[in-house]
Amino acid sequence: MGGHEEEARARACLTAVVRPGDPWLGALLAEHGAARVWAALRAREAPPPLETEEDPTDEERALQRWRGWAHKSLAVDADALLARSAEAGVRFVAPGDPEWPGRLDERPGGRDCHGLWVRGHGDLRNLCLRSVGIVGARAASPYGEYVASELAHGLAERSFTVVSGGAYGIDGAAHRAAMTTGRTVAVLACGLDVDYPRGHAGLFTEVARHGALVSERPVGRTPRAPDFLIRNRLIAALTSGTVVVEAGRRSGALNTAAHADELHRVLMAVPGPVTSATSVGCHRLLKEGRAVCVTGVDDVVEQIAPLDELSTMGGPLPVHTDLSAETARVLAAVGTRGAGTAGVARASGEGLEQTMRSLGLLAAAGLVERSPTGWRRPPSGRS
Amino acid sequence: MGGHEEEARARACLTAVVRPGDPWLGALLAEHGAARVWAALRAREAPPPLETEEDPTDEERALQRWRGWAHKSLAVDADALLARSAEAGVRFVAPGDPEWPGRLDERPGGRDCHGLWVRGHGDLRNLCLRSVGIVGARAASPYGEYVASELAHGLAERSFTVVSGGAYGIDGAAHRAAMTTGRTVAVLACGLDVDYPRGHAGLFTEVARHGALVSERPVGRTPRAPDFLIRNRLIAALTSGTVVVEAGRRSGALNTAAHADELHRVLMAVPGPVTSATSVGCHRLLKEGRAVCVTGVDDVVEQIAPLDELSTMGGPLPVHTDLSAETARVLAAVGTRGAGTAGVARASGEGLEQTMRSLGLLAAAGLVERSPTGWRRPPSGRS
Repeated sequence: MGGHEEEARARACLTAVVRPGDPWLGALLAEHGAARVWAALRAREAPPPLETEEDPTDEERALQRWRGWAHKSLAVDADALLARSAEAGVRFVAPGDPEWPGRLDERPGGRDCHGLWVRGHGDLRNLCLRSVGIVGARAASPYGEYVASELAHGLAERSFTVVSGGAYGIDGAAHRAAMTTGRTVAVLACGLDVDYPRGHAGLFTEVARHGALVSERPVGRTPRAPDFLIRNRLIAALTSGTVVVEAGRRSGALNTAAHADELHRVLMAVPGPVTSATSVGCHRLLKEGRAVCVTGVDDVVEQIAPLDELSTMGGPLPVHTDLSAETARVLAAVGTRGAGTAGVARASGEGLEQTMRSLGLLAAAGLVERSPTGWRRPPSGRS
Repeated sequence: MGGHEEEARARACLTAVVRPGDPWLGALLAEHGAARVWAALRAREAPPPLETEEDPTDEERALQRWRGWAHKSLAVDADALLARSAEAGVRFVAPGDPEWPGRLDERPGGRDCHGLWVRGHGDLRNLCLRSVGIVGARAASPYGEYVASELAHGLAERSFTVVSGGAYGIDGAAHRAAMTTGRTVAVLACGLDVDYPRGHAGLFTEVARHGALVSERPVGRTPRAPDFLIRNRLIAALTSGTVVVEAGRRSGALNTAAHADELHRVLMAVPGPVTSATSVGCHRLLKEGRAVCVTGVDDVVEQIAPLDELSTMGGPLPVHTDLSAETARVLAAVGTRGAGTAGVARASGEGLEQTMRSLGLLAAAGLVERSPTGWRRPPSGRS
């Protein structure tokens, strides 16, 4: 078994025993590797000591967590977990995998995501290259659902992937509208075979076709209340920015604000009638200066564009930290006039197969396009 | 004829020939006095030279203005103007008059108001001590009128004078609601006997009873389009801050924003549905960071309070730049326990009549209140 595969397998198993977002575990994995940590848990050994970072100050509570993980780890059958996942069409994506979203490696806090379960046709890394989160109240008003739909539709049309939480209300409206013109990603708080909420089972099937479903939880896992808050963090982490369309006074969507801050993402809020309880949260974000006021697609694009690594096209070749070296070379070989695939391959120095794969990725991300004269960069100014 | 009376009379005449807000005229009046300027105009002399400030760079245009004023001045009969005004219940208030709002002397731009025509029972200076502007679209939505009413009602209840423009839509709603619990000032773009718009003639009669009507234009003057924009500047100047409740893409209310900036007043905007054309202007102000988001009375009070010279009560005696020396001494003599009028007069060193007048002013401004034990300062924290 190869090193990476073993690591990924251990990380997949860890999702069955730990709560997502544990920074101590992130440090342990970074220093010792997941296989070693997993083996220590299974053998009921003490946690390997951290040398690069301070060990958790409150050691007793950390050790309690460790013992809990160790206890649960005994019940995990790696082969069965992966088989059951595969059966449900769910794959595991670990850091270093081609599909791992580069954004998650950005500091701070990126390391807190230890691995992702993914279901659907889309390539997650690719889907997230140019993406916006749209979140909001489950008990949305017709106004909120209308605005969420308009935004999602328009952003998807402009090649932004719409990332939301799969819930009723704003989330559902955003996913549905995005799929009419483009791509969407649903970040769930439960296992990807669980279909929570029930009424969205059909929606999730559609999302899998038009993008991807993502979760930090393994198949079979039903959602619990704190999971939804952790899920919001992942939405912020996967996107350039998040729009809160409607949120009541204590909406969970508001905690996306804290995450966006922490992760240096743009937070946007849509205003609404001051007489509407579902806009109170949005107005609070605006009053406190924590969110930027957006009223339509143009506003969102304007806010996201400077941060979006894909928006600098047309100028000198940008450093696409999120692209593989091969794909970056292929991108560099594409001009504004158009060239055939073979020509691009020759110019890039990559093989034909790699070139085709990279061009597909780049086209999906809106970085290159097919024209009558062949592959070319889209005219600048278009985004 | 006394110096001040002569000056005031000349300023009253000037309102019949110049457009409000002329900074050159402001400089001329400051340096040479209104009587001298008016005499020069009537005698068709050249404008007296400015020594303290640079003369207008574009001299030919300034001289053209001057010639236009001189020409019109010949038609002005001061006695007739004042008699006609008095007949309509309209008085002229000049800088230095007891009723002149102290705010207008604040730099920058305060000097651009050369004099005010006032109609109504209220003392204008007193009315403006603690005041908020509420402005917005004439073609307001039911939502906008509702919000304007709620804000005006609540602010009037908290002893803020609601200042607005007397127009249909937001303005009318604000005036009406303010009068149910407190005081209001209508700033008009026409002469105070003109009742424009017609349908608000009854409203203006009510406003005169519950506060005051104000204009920079003499009686008989019908409004023209540019007058409305200049009127907005006066609303900003008379208040601590202005709330834009609804404004379309090109609403005149938006130019209040520029004035508020220039005059260092707080500008606030009420959000609304992003689907509403009458909220587009408010959202633009919020997006551009030119206005603070407010959704209710508490927000407005929070924004205004630090700037309101009357809000510091309860702490050490504040310097009320807007109070006359006599009234400030009376205020200083009022404690938290309560004292009779005669006691306050003794403690302040002012005569009984002056003390009564000052106490009336201070009570109207919420700075003192009658209690079972006599005059006292309101408990701190109440504003």
